[in-house]
Parts: sequence; C-alpha cells; structure tokens
Amino acid sequence: MHFNESRLSALERRYKARLINSLSGFKSANLVGTVSAEGITNLAMVSSVFHLGANPPLVGMIIRPHSVTRDTLENIETTGVYTLNQVSASFWKQAHQTSARYDAETSEFYATGLGEQFREGITAPFVEESALSYALKVAEMTTLAVNDTVMVIGEITDIFVEDIAVMEDGYIDIETLDTVAVSGLDAYHVTQRLGRLAYAKPDLPTRCLGDDE
Amino acid sequence: MHFNESRLSALERRYKARLINSLSGFKSANLVGTVSAEGITNLAMVSSVFHLGANPPLVGMIIRPHSVTRDTLENIETTGVYTLNQVSASFWKQAHQTSARYDAETSEFYATGLGEQFREGITAPFVEESALSYALKVAEMTTLAVNDTVMVIGEITDIFVEDIAVMEDGYIDIETLDTVAVSGLDAYHVTQRLGRLAYAKPDLPTRCLGDDE
Repeated sequence: MHFNESRLSALERRYKARLINSLSGFKSANLVGTVSAEGITNLAMVSSVFHLGANPPLVGMIIRPHSVTRDTLENIETTGVYTLNQVSASFWKQAHQTSARYDAETSEFYATGLGEQFREGITAPFVEESALSYALKVAEMTTLAVNDTVMVIGEITDIFVEDIAVMEDGYIDIETLDTVAVSGLDAYHVTQRLGRLAYAKPDLPTRCLGDDE
Repeated sequence: MHFNESRLSALERRYKARLINSLSGFKSANLVGTVSAEGITNLAMVSSVFHLGANPPLVGMIIRPHSVTRDTLENIETTGVYTLNQVSASFWKQAHQTSARYDAETSEFYATGLGEQFREGITAPFVEESALSYALKVAEMTTLAVNDTVMVIGEITDIFVEDIAVMEDGYIDIETLDTVAVSGLDAYHVTQRLGRLAYAKPDLPTRCLGDDE
C-alpha cells in the first residue's frame, strides 16, 4: 500500500490523524502532573515524551497549546516545575480519561479518581498509582515554527521508582512495572521482552546480555 | 527508591545513562536510511522518533552530532531526504548491530545483511525487511542549546505499508506487523494490545473501541 503526497493530502482529517499518529512506532505513556497559581492540580496524558540526554538528565515532550493540554502548558510556564508519571496496566483507562476536556476548575485527579500525591520540596503533584515517576524543572520551552506546537524540555531533579525494577547496571525494567506503550491515538499495549543486547561493535556478532543469553 | 539531585550527579556515567534512558518509557525503534553525496548508503538505529503533527504530517527525531550517527546527520544535511523504517521482531538484532561504529566507507546494509531497497523518485534507501516505512524531506534542523543534540523534523512524503495492517479508520495496527518497542539503551520488546479507547469525554465513562469491546 502506497500513500504519496497527493493521496496523503486528500485524506479525511480524522483518518489522516490516525494514520500519521501510527507512523512513529510505539510511544511512551505518561501523565504530566502540574498545579496552577490558584492551587488547582492538573493531569494530562502525553505520548510524546522522549529521551534527550543523560548528562545533564533531560527529557522533552510536545504539547499542543490550543488543545485540552493548554492548562498544563500554562501551569508549567507559571510554576516552572512538573512531574512525569509512567502509566501502567493497572490504570491505563483512567489515564486515558484525563484527556477529556474538563473545565479549568476541575482537577483530573478528582475527575478520574487517580491518587494525588505531594512530596517534600516539590510543588507539582504525583500520581500515586505510578510505579515510576519523576520531577522536572523547565530547561527550555520553544514554539516550533513548523506547526506551532510547543517543545518543553525539562531537567530531571528527583526520581521515585520501585526498588525491584532497578537493575544492578542502572537499567530500569519498566516491563516488570507493567508500564504500557501507546500506538496511534488510542491503542494501549503491554510488552514481552525479546532481550537486551550488548553494545554493538563492528567486528563482533550481536550478543545478548545477562539473563537473556 | 529515591534519587535526588545530589545522588543523581554522583552516579557512575554508564549507570546514569542506563537509568535516565529508562525514564521516558517505551520508545520507538526505527532505522534511518540515508545516502551520501558519494552514493554510500547508511543505516542508523534511532529510538527518539516522535509524532509532531498530522497536518502537515511531521515527525521529529534527536541525533547526537558527534556519535556514531554523525554520518546520518551529514547525509540528511547534504541530500535533504531520509527514510524511516519500523523495526520488527524478524530483524531486531540486525537493526541493533547498525549502531556499531563502522567506518564511513562501510554501508550498514552491507555490514548487517539488511536488504537495501530503492523506490522510484526517492533518493534515500529503504530497509527491505521493514513492513512500515516512509520517506521524509527535511522541514527543520535545530541544534538544541540545552545539550547540543540536533532535532531533525521531517515532512512525510510517501508511506509504504502492508495492506493488512491499515484499519478502516486509518489506524495502523503496528502490533500485527510485529513492530518492536525499546526500553532503556538496549532492551527490545514485542507487545500485546490491551485495547483501543474511544475519544474521552468529561461526562462519559471510558469506553473501548470496536473489537476490544
């Protein structure tokens, strides 16, 4: 099946959104926790969180400024801090429900029943049900000229994770935590590990690591 | 388990890289196909491809300019075009092997045995084994001030996908194609769908779509 430029541009709007959203591959599922100047908490589902670098520890995400996530963006601008909370199989439906267009006075914590958790020294709220969550301070916010979406880059200040998932070499086994992956606009998946692979070298065959050998 | 800023900054370099790379959640697995001005093809594994928008159809990716992916970046700068090829369970080890530091004269297609495929009107090579691949033209390349990585944004011009995976509503069932997900630096996973969820509304309970009901 081949979609070329003219066929792509002729597609019905929703069909095209589902198609293009499927192309990047599996996506991360995270809830962004923020709080407004008035103290109203907010929770928003994002599938665009991506690793940017370990030194300093940075992640990026894309936010649409005129959509349901506008409150998130405003809260981040105002307070400079936010949390990211990995979504797991035990609360994927509640996580998805946060994407409904609640009014600015309604906290998505309240609306979906997810647990609101505050931790010492961190203004933004965490999701109690999440087995891996972290706090960030804003490092950069840029409006992308190509389509007016906003890229938010955050520096990680605090990580909270269940002990059992942190391997000896630093790798976090997020599959053990039942972290879900997203495809397209609305599909959620659990995973089965094929294996971990050793650092690749030109003169060596591909080799599995540890338990996967 | 809690890592705060001082504990994070004291971590051993490789441990920290594995830890931070695990935070964003599941990542996409894609091979970037490019060709140099001299006609040498290149294939590089990237796990940072993210959806940016459907109208126009855009995806972004992060490339480290001084690493093994420097040839990819140079080829994209020179030719203005590249391909993205979803990695599936049938060739995940070969895909990982492309991340070895081959010299600029060696094509990773040749080194790993992956099939090089050219398509009419598109200069960049495709991966024959990939069940979902697409061609892009560069829309924007930006060096991020926070850590000197390069964000490459491309506009999708041509999509090639197996018919069977394209659903009636435009969603591509990438699980059917055995597309893999990545966690951390080196772990690969296949998936099992939990379900697709209907567009969320404030006054309605979360609802599964179609077959998943």
